[in-house]
Amino acid sequence: MNEVIQLLNNHRSIRSFTEKKLSDETIHALVKAAQSASTSSYVQAYSIIGVTNDNLKAELRKVSGQSYVEHNGHLFVFVIDYNRHVKLSHLKDNEVKFENTEQLIVGTVDATLAAQNLAIAAESMGLGICYIGSLRNNVSRVIELLKLPSGVFPLFGMVVGEPANKGSQKERLPFETVYFENAYKSVDDADVLAEVEAYDSRVSEYYKDRTNGERNDTWTDQVTTMLSRKTRLDVHDVLKSQGFLQQ
Amino acid sequence: MNEVIQLLNNHRSIRSFTEKKLSDETIHALVKAAQSASTSSYVQAYSIIGVTNDNLKAELRKVSGQSYVEHNGHLFVFVIDYNRHVKLSHLKDNEVKFENTEQLIVGTVDATLAAQNLAIAAESMGLGICYIGSLRNNVSRVIELLKLPSGVFPLFGMVVGEPANKGSQKERLPFETVYFENAYKSVDDADVLAEVEAYDSRVSEYYKDRTNGERNDTWTDQVTTMLSRKTRLDVHDVLKSQGFLQQ
Repeated sequence: MNEVIQLLNNHRSIRSFTEKKLSDETIHALVKAAQSASTSSYVQAYSIIGVTNDNLKAELRKVSGQSYVEHNGHLFVFVIDYNRHVKLSHLKDNEVKFENTEQLIVGTVDATLAAQNLAIAAESMGLGICYIGSLRNNVSRVIELLKLPSGVFPLFGMVVGEPANKGSQKERLPFETVYFENAYKSVDDADVLAEVEAYDSRVSEYYKDRTNGERNDTWTDQVTTMLSRKTRLDVHDVLKSQGFLQQ
Repeated sequence: MNEVIQLLNNHRSIRSFTEKKLSDETIHALVKAAQSASTSSYVQAYSIIGVTNDNLKAELRKVSGQSYVEHNGHLFVFVIDYNRHVKLSHLKDNEVKFENTEQLIVGTVDATLAAQNLAIAAESMGLGICYIGSLRNNVSRVIELLKLPSGVFPLFGMVVGEPANKGSQKERLPFETVYFENAYKSVDDADVLAEVEAYDSRVSEYYKDRTNGERNDTWTDQVTTMLSRKTRLDVHDVLKSQGFLQQ
């Protein structure tokens, strides 16, 4: 296994950082690595906001609920961005459309490819990262705080910095349950279900070990409970008010 | 600059491969690297279909229109996947919801994080990759071909293999036009617009050089023309028929 694959396989989210700030040089290098990722038909439908203002960070922490949104080496917010294309099209007498679901998918994929490159670049420097999906707890507030115009939507944040702890790694679903050849195979398949059940036992053991037995839920318990709650229902309407999903 | 960042910055899409197939060992290593990426709240809302059947590859090539969908070392299709969670929830008497726009975003992000890890792992082995967004030219057909049930949506493909050429690298937007501090800055800002215009000139020169002057469009020409066409309008309805976007 080469060193790059070792780095990828060693990923863990870091949720506690020293207060050492990233240098401008590091920020430039990380953004360049982000931009080097693939982009759908060269469209580059994203931007990145670096948040350095202490008041803004404190307000974004309130949205997220996570202390590390405030305390980190740097906070990046990845936004889907068609505002640029729309404004430029007016100079060319074209009229850009981004209101279809296809464009939402393209923007989400483009921003995420860039973000994952940034994450890997940061980890290759010995920095830790954590994605901040919890900015979507209140997307309207994030839009207001970062002054995001029509055509722009805050997808997630990412904190980067010098790790203050090692983090921990949670085992992923078994290969046989997520990779299929030539056709989809559901958990109705007995072999797939048996693999998920064995995985559930291992996840439950992991939680027991870490909590002295206080917690013993399985992966299935955890994710099915989470997904049985309706959350972030406002995301849909805020996307619409930013000009997306008009179909 | 370390070797990982050099690898990221050196990315280029490869659209021509030798017929050498990836070994099972390589496929396992790539999928493991993919799964090591971050996942929203541990939900792992994706699966990966490896397509090895020649007839299937020929049919998917028809959807995409690209010859390299048929001729490559391996073809991966990344699918958003909540079918697993729904089926498992029935065993637990929970009821999983994935119909909200938030879950579409989570699934798209999760699948894309995994895909980009797979891409980087492949490139670290000296393999080339190309994302196949053009599978969304006819998502219904892809769903039929790969037997994708409710809760599953084909996001994109990725071809991987031994490169038959070097590919080429297209310059990305300038740092100052995609990275902003504390607040969004649009192309209405004169400095941002000047940077985009300088970039447009460089992109136009690049095309002139590569085509002996036959092509000289700018980045702005290219992407605003593309986005002025309404394409893939069926993506919305197919997502709905797979159970997404019911809000």
